[in-house]
Amino acid sequence: MSIELYWGSGSPFAWRVMLTLEVKGLPYESKLLEFSKQQHKAADYLRLNPRGKVPTLRDGDYIVYESLAIMAYLDRKYPDPPLFGTTAEATGSIWQIISETESYLATAGDKIVRPMFFGKGLDQVELIQEAARTVRRELALRDERLTQANWLVREQITAADIAVFPLIQLLLRAASKQAAEPFDLGLLPLSTTYPNIARWVQRIEALPGYDRTYPPHWR
Amino acid sequence: MSIELYWGSGSPFAWRVMLTLEVKGLPYESKLLEFSKQQHKAADYLRLNPRGKVPTLRDGDYIVYESLAIMAYLDRKYPDPPLFGTTAEATGSIWQIISETESYLATAGDKIVRPMFFGKGLDQVELIQEAARTVRRELALRDERLTQANWLVREQITAADIAVFPLIQLLLRAASKQAAEPFDLGLLPLSTTYPNIARWVQRIEALPGYDRTYPPHWR
Repeated sequence: MSIELYWGSGSPFAWRVMLTLEVKGLPYESKLLEFSKQQHKAADYLRLNPRGKVPTLRDGDYIVYESLAIMAYLDRKYPDPPLFGTTAEATGSIWQIISETESYLATAGDKIVRPMFFGKGLDQVELIQEAARTVRRELALRDERLTQANWLVREQITAADIAVFPLIQLLLRAASKQAAEPFDLGLLPLSTTYPNIARWVQRIEALPGYDRTYPPHWR
Repeated sequence: MSIELYWGSGSPFAWRVMLTLEVKGLPYESKLLEFSKQQHKAADYLRLNPRGKVPTLRDGDYIVYESLAIMAYLDRKYPDPPLFGTTAEATGSIWQIISETESYLATAGDKIVRPMFFGKGLDQVELIQEAARTVRRELALRDERLTQANWLVREQITAADIAVFPLIQLLLRAASKQAAEPFDLGLLPLSTTYPNIARWVQRIEALPGYDRTYPPHWR
């Protein structure tokens, strides 16, 4: 029985799971859902995931959704290499970075990404500027961590890196859109604004199998 | 070296950690911060947790914050009883419920709790009604799960129960406030609206040490 992954192009949450699968060298059957055709809301898919969101993973008889839950499942089932730490202290620090990412970076990032991608709410200038301030503060914290090590927690890639990476890619793409020009988001070019994050992005882009995880409609 | 817990009365996130410590039977030194005196923003505390939020846990030299990260740390360091599952499938299901709780129940719950507790935004009637619809949908899902088992994942208490419980207590308290009367939140009495959740709440309230976790200013 093989692993099946239901995903959508450009979903940062699906991207996390694809990176996890590649880092662990796990083969899987790709089930790409087309958002434009509402395939994530089709009856067949809702039977797997009643919320109609991506990603969903099926491994034999077992079905799990929510990106972090899928990552935790995969790490327990296929522990090599370990992505949630080999000591209690590392486990705590990895989940701390993930929680902070969900609570602060993802929430603020969304307020920038949505307007830039979909053109909605671009008139809410103060809201976007406020979100950009939060994003810059959060990126600065992560850039600072990366002065001390190649990865966010110690000297090897963990779930913390994988959880953060797609959100940063999404932000960079949003910042490069024409709609972002009137805003002084202060994110680009990354090599100047956050040089340690820029090198860390290159490290992830150099991982074997990375190309297979890149959103096809971004090419 | 003993465990120190920095917490605030009524914080659902601190409550999660206190329940975790009690379920594991771990003694700890209580460091209660008074929000009204801004003790969570004092220089001493910001050195432990630069975000100035509760809870923060110190265990010897190790410091960790964000409730779920503290729970993951404690479970790895003090594995008895295991709260994040003993199989990969249980681990995935526990984190799935936690992720869904953070993404849906907590976000909507906050839009009800804040106005009822602090009187701000009570004029945003449609926003509150919309949040109440989401909360009722989320509670119905959890009530349904609890028809099949005593706990949210299988037959023993896990981190999923502990992560959800304080948020539900907060919602019930908000719903019982006078400010909630004009709104038809549809949450009370719990024994009628969500009978399986009501019995599950009683199960948690019967845990040894539960009383020590109850917010002192709620008494």
